[in-house]
Amino acid sequence: MSKKTLRVSKIKNGTVIDHINGGHALDVVKILGITGSTSGVISIGINVPSKRLGIKDIVKVEGRELDPSEVDKIALLAPHATINIIKDYKVVEKKRVKLPDTVTGVIKCGNPACISNSSEPVQSKFYVEKEEPLRLKCHYCGHVMEKGDVLKQF
Amino acid sequence: MSKKTLRVSKIKNGTVIDHINGGHALDVVKILGITGSTSGVISIGINVPSKRLGIKDIVKVEGRELDPSEVDKIALLAPHATINIIKDYKVVEKKRVKLPDTVTGVIKCGNPACISNSSEPVQSKFYVEKEEPLRLKCHYCGHVMEKGDVLKQF
Repeated sequence: MSKKTLRVSKIKNGTVIDHINGGHALDVVKILGITGSTSGVISIGINVPSKRLGIKDIVKVEGRELDPSEVDKIALLAPHATINIIKDYKVVEKKRVKLPDTVTGVIKCGNPACISNSSEPVQSKFYVEKEEPLRLKCHYCGHVMEKGDVLKQF
Repeated sequence: MSKKTLRVSKIKNGTVIDHINGGHALDVVKILGITGSTSGVISIGINVPSKRLGIKDIVKVEGRELDPSEVDKIALLAPHATINIIKDYKVVEKKRVKLPDTVTGVIKCGNPACISNSSEPVQSKFYVEKEEPLRLKCHYCGHVMEKGDVLKQF
């Protein structure tokens, strides 16, 4: 890739979340809790031309790795993303985000009467009915959650 | 600047909003109406090291120039930004954002009873009492607006 088409440059250490579906980078940024008051360098490319996806988004977070709960959340909103751990400008680990068939404990059920929202020790559990656009169904009450409902929780 | 420190690369045509106060790029993105469904390539750098500001943010919008109402809004939230119009990789116009002493018609007064919110043909008008953090005072009712109140309108 020539210098002029590489929109967001290499980073020394940190995490690159690549192949995010075009236009979804700002959702990923929200998941990572990046707001006006966050420290640390972040680079974001939106609607960047991609061979594999046509267009894609990319987010580079310098100086830190993602924790597993962040990866689980990204899987919900960018199910085809790849996560690269970078050390000294080199990719030392590459993993593909994977949305499992059931999603447990990551988001809350939107139905306030659901047993997973009660004081019972019951973790939320959803079946992934559809990846794109996202459609989750609660194991306990059958309540359906879509992408917008999920995003509101992050 | 070496290739490795240039976080967000040159663009061919469009607008570069530079020297945004560190951490405020996502506010600027919101002003520009950039959401998941916007087309066009956008690159964003957050908390990038800067000689002038210590850290700064930068937003590059490919393929379009900003309209004056967008520039007025950016002045409210990033009063020290510079806006560069790029054609064929060259800066053809450079302007400094300037927050005027009075801000007219850009935002609505947060007081529902203010005459500028009535059906009278009265444009909103605020005095800039402070730039950082932003503090605006309504000319008509004295209502004070801060940054968070302003952001909610964009």
